[in-house]
Amino acid sequence: MNDSPIRFGLIGTGRIGQVHARSIAENPRTALSRVADPFVEGARSVAARFGGTPTDSADELLAAGDLDAVLIASPTPTHVPLISAALDAGLPVLCEKPIDLDLAAVDALRGRVAASPVPVAIGFNRRFDPAFADVRARVRAGEIGELEQLTITSRDPAAPPADYVGVSGGIFRDMTIHDFDMARFFLPDIVEVQASGSTLFDEGARQHGDFDTAVVVLRSRSGALVTIVNSRHSAVGYDQRMEAFGSRGVLNVANAPTSLVSVSTAAAVEARPPYQDFFLDRYREAYAAELEAFVSTVRGEPSESPTFEDGRAALVLAEAAQRSAETGRSVPVDLD
Amino acid sequence: MNDSPIRFGLIGTGRIGQVHARSIAENPRTALSRVADPFVEGARSVAARFGGTPTDSADELLAAGDLDAVLIASPTPTHVPLISAALDAGLPVLCEKPIDLDLAAVDALRGRVAASPVPVAIGFNRRFDPAFADVRARVRAGEIGELEQLTITSRDPAAPPADYVGVSGGIFRDMTIHDFDMARFFLPDIVEVQASGSTLFDEGARQHGDFDTAVVVLRSRSGALVTIVNSRHSAVGYDQRMEAFGSRGVLNVANAPTSLVSVSTAAAVEARPPYQDFFLDRYREAYAAELEAFVSTVRGEPSESPTFEDGRAALVLAEAAQRSAETGRSVPVDLD
Amino acid sequence: MNDSPIRFGLIGTGRIGQVHARSIAENPRTALSRVADPFVEGARSVAARFGGTPTDSADELLAAGDLDAVLIASPTPTHVPLISAALDAGLPVLCEKPIDLDLAAVDALRGRVAASPVPVAIGFNRRFDPAFADVRARVRAGEIGELEQLTITSRDPAAPPADYVGVSGGIFRDMTIHDFDMARFFLPDIVEVQASGSTLFDEGARQHGDFDTAVVVLRSRSGALVTIVNSRHSAVGYDQRMEAFGSRGVLNVANAPTSLVSVSTAAAVEARPPYQDFFLDRYREAYAAELEAFVSTVRGEPSESPTFEDGRAALVLAEAAQRSAETGRSVPVDLD
Amino acid sequence: MNDSPIRFGLIGTGRIGQVHARSIAENPRTALSRVADPFVEGARSVAARFGGTPTDSADELLAAGDLDAVLIASPTPTHVPLISAALDAGLPVLCEKPIDLDLAAVDALRGRVAASPVPVAIGFNRRFDPAFADVRARVRAGEIGELEQLTITSRDPAAPPADYVGVSGGIFRDMTIHDFDMARFFLPDIVEVQASGSTLFDEGARQHGDFDTAVVVLRSRSGALVTIVNSRHSAVGYDQRMEAFGSRGVLNVANAPTSLVSVSTAAAVEARPPYQDFFLDRYREAYAAELEAFVSTVRGEPSESPTFEDGRAALVLAEAAQRSAETGRSVPVDLD
Repeated sequence: MNDSPIRFGLIGTGRIGQVHARSIAENPRTALSRVADPFVEGARSVAARFGGTPTDSADELLAAGDLDAVLIASPTPTHVPLISAALDAGLPVLCEKPIDLDLAAVDALRGRVAASPVPVAIGFNRRFDPAFADVRARVRAGEIGELEQLTITSRDPAAPPADYVGVSGGIFRDMTIHDFDMARFFLPDIVEVQASGSTLFDEGARQHGDFDTAVVVLRSRSGALVTIVNSRHSAVGYDQRMEAFGSRGVLNVANAPTSLVSVSTAAAVEARPPYQDFFLDRYREAYAAELEAFVSTVRGEPSESPTFEDGRAALVLAEAAQRSAETGRSVPVDLD
Repeated sequence: MNDSPIRFGLIGTGRIGQVHARSIAENPRTALSRVADPFVEGARSVAARFGGTPTDSADELLAAGDLDAVLIASPTPTHVPLISAALDAGLPVLCEKPIDLDLAAVDALRGRVAASPVPVAIGFNRRFDPAFADVRARVRAGEIGELEQLTITSRDPAAPPADYVGVSGGIFRDMTIHDFDMARFFLPDIVEVQASGSTLFDEGARQHGDFDTAVVVLRSRSGALVTIVNSRHSAVGYDQRMEAFGSRGVLNVANAPTSLVSVSTAAAVEARPPYQDFFLDRYREAYAAELEAFVSTVRGEPSESPTFEDGRAALVLAEAAQRSAETGRSVPVDLD
Repeated sequence: MNDSPIRFGLIGTGRIGQVHARSIAENPRTALSRVADPFVEGARSVAARFGGTPTDSADELLAAGDLDAVLIASPTPTHVPLISAALDAGLPVLCEKPIDLDLAAVDALRGRVAASPVPVAIGFNRRFDPAFADVRARVRAGEIGELEQLTITSRDPAAPPADYVGVSGGIFRDMTIHDFDMARFFLPDIVEVQASGSTLFDEGARQHGDFDTAVVVLRSRSGALVTIVNSRHSAVGYDQRMEAFGSRGVLNVANAPTSLVSVSTAAAVEARPPYQDFFLDRYREAYAAELEAFVSTVRGEPSESPTFEDGRAALVLAEAAQRSAETGRSVPVDLD
Repeated sequence: MNDSPIRFGLIGTGRIGQVHARSIAENPRTALSRVADPFVEGARSVAARFGGTPTDSADELLAAGDLDAVLIASPTPTHVPLISAALDAGLPVLCEKPIDLDLAAVDALRGRVAASPVPVAIGFNRRFDPAFADVRARVRAGEIGELEQLTITSRDPAAPPADYVGVSGGIFRDMTIHDFDMARFFLPDIVEVQASGSTLFDEGARQHGDFDTAVVVLRSRSGALVTIVNSRHSAVGYDQRMEAFGSRGVLNVANAPTSLVSVSTAAAVEARPPYQDFFLDRYREAYAAELEAFVSTVRGEPSESPTFEDGRAALVLAEAAQRSAETGRSVPVDLD
């Protein structure tokens, strides 16, 4: 492979696929070679903007023989078969999260991936956000002593369409999945899950028996506790915060401002405009860094790409949270 | 009683008793008439500073016949018998929290209090903190729409002595009790409790089988969720925050700064000195306002003194949290 | 004098006189012995609340022979004769600022004060504000390297009555006088003054040929520049800020919040209620600390009470600012 | 011209020329057609990255006949002759500030520009910064009532090389020039200038008789006062703030953070990493918006490109400031 750019095949050209296409085009170490989407117009449009040969067939893309890696950004149910096909083709994979909504399907692939000579990485982009990555590095460096509590506040600007809720696998598999992985980014060895859910405002959630509001508490092997506070809506914008509480101090990640301006009047002082309200704005840098890490993974350089096991672990936690929320019991988990 | 100051008998002259003695002396509507403590030097010292006749006998104080109200600030095990004796004497009571560590003892007194012609108030001082009271008033006024989530962060500066931990009744009855009441200040109808505890750093907690770190999730009848994050220590000072998350916005209570000064250098910008680290500093105004409210209660004016039922409810939640943390199951509660 | 409380005679019982009366009554090292005001009802009222014998005659007070110190809080035109009379009586003086509106009157007293065996202190209370005092201590300790620029923002909540403006001596003598002293608290050796004034909103200022808006630039002997930004009104509350800019960093004093609560909605985030809007609230601690320092001065202990020379220097700067604003020329000053 | 991209000739390929080259390449309404620099390698490198034909001759570029506009980013002494030559060629011009260091040279061109059928715009990029532009729009919309005071804090991260200082025209022409234009963005009718300068830390400034520290006060026709606080260095990063103080409130522009992370320990709370320290980072969006506005100007659409008169006015203010700082007198100016 040497120093020539890694030739990517991109499967899936929806919103997130387009983000990856841009990242691939802008990164000097990567090039977009092939683009597949059964909705071939999508593939053509992306190829026109970011390079590569379009096709309506993922199989054709994988069979072409001129790729160095595959990025899977197609709908969740296609992930497992496409990862499998990519491994058949001997190609490293970066696959969007979640691997699947069904743990059994993931486990069926697990041995195959473990034995694979090429890497399979999962797209937990938030690990690559500069703020979260910085906090983790500083926690590891001991800046706040022992990590005792991690509090993750994660609220979307607005609930998804009711149709989507119905196929999402539920709030824990669909939304909290990111927070489960973030928890494990700091405390990989989670041993117990407690979850509470409520349905307070979203008609879609109500229709599909899902929650729109949730709190999850995770216990790590060390006894450190992680608290995740979720909501499907947030009037003030995308709410993505973290507090890492240690024996000697606290590291905080604040929400992303949209302006440097504040206003003060007789009514209120230091008021600022609402936070960023779109995940692609909030995590723009994270997506680019995620790709950069995967390039290192592919090149065999030291890297921190989340693994298939990380993807599986997040799903295990999501399933445990669902069960805990339904039964009112804490659920022990074994991520090994 | 008219407009003459309410004559208080104070029982107990430890740290918190002295706080109340000062409040009574400084409030123009109250006067300190009698002070009792079996350690009579304490009673004498408080009487010398803030007025009143000292005695070593609470019985003598209650029998004197020249009091309008009693403030009980003696050790927890004396609360129930002293409330009972005060009611015998026909005197309104303001009693420090908790009523008792044992719900059975509280329940034994419950009917008596319910039937009493004079009020019994419990000293949940935080309800009277200007910040928390303001948030609650604004939530009630609808400023943030429907209240969906309440997040209370409550961490003490440092763990208490090991001896104290042994008789404290455990972190939920001793420390979280304040947070349970604060939760009910916003959402009185709690129906379910889930709790997780860890013992991470405090030798006293370890010796006595107690937790030093805890997270509690409460569900209200409406489905709103309350998250309480506790620790027995905090390197940055007394950590007392709240986030009330509603359908249309968020109200936050920040920690209390100790200075208006910040410093910026090449190493870090806008760094401020640590927060207040003593509850008597943080809640100074709250204690005075608590007394003021109790005066209104005694005078039969509209008031918001926490009731015996509020005190009982906080203990019910503490017991439920203890059980949940021990069993890993959510515990339904009925506060009626 | 030993350890018995310093017996104060207070002259003047207006708003600021009452502040001092309270400080004297609350400080365990001081006692209010005599209170004088030609409006004898004021003297009686203050004496009833804070102690001492009332009189309508400052002469009688000074002649009583049972005082250890005098606090002069009467109208400005009485300051010079009363300081003089106090020195005749051999009594240490703490006199409110300004010494006089007329430099000639101050200079007539200057030699007398310099030769006096008892101290004369001037009430520049802001030096004793915990925030400003902290910044100065840290600047002196070298925390931000060499002090290069000092920016003082000082705006009153609302313009004074038109009548007052007419006898105030103008904005520089009346309001900026505090900022001149604050500048000298950091950089005593001011050598040049440049000032600009405008009359933008206050009818009283317009009637009396005064400014309601001003900017003053002071040059210190070292070349460090001080910028003072003034306004007679401020919609957001009392605006009292400072930025000390040094070669290695910056120290800032923020405005004093009135609450720990902030609100975030779709319209604006982190909005807080307006700042304190009354100087007696903002500088409550400063007045008490000012008295405490004067007690040390009287006792011959090391202290930092502003001197008569400090009071004169502030007036020299005010006169120079007035001249600069009128002529458009920078005015050299010699404070020695 | 229709809807086809505006074909730009870029003259000058130094640091700022490269910024513009990128903006031209990235803006869908513009294209880089020709690039001139006497250092032809620079022109070739820019052309290779962003498009266009390189040349070492600005004359050749202007004579090519296939351009729609010229962007002048060459050294200051070339600005006047190049603007003149561009007008000869009938081409609209966007020229970097300052027009010239010598007002006489600017005035010699003034009539020519006034009579020109094509526009000449000056590159005051800060007008296009989202924060400053937002504050100005809100001031104009009356959000803070009448604008009474504008305070601009503008400090560079580090002093330029001594050689540069020698040819810079001095701090007022070189650095404050941006702040003069910003002042006029809010208050165009400046009538008087007062300036103070000091040389405190920069050896280059000392060698060349320049200041490294300055404060300028401008008076507008309305009486509103502008205060500009400058330094050639800043330990905490690029310091670019503004406070617009009005009769009904205040709008503030804060410094640009580099991270969402803060840390709190027993030593200090809420400490954040230093601000951005490079003007190209701080004003990245501003440069793109500046180009966008110029495209509108060229197309005859409503636009806000700063004009040649704006460029001249800033220079008039700079000269006046220099004279005021040297003489200690306020300098009246007439910008008409």
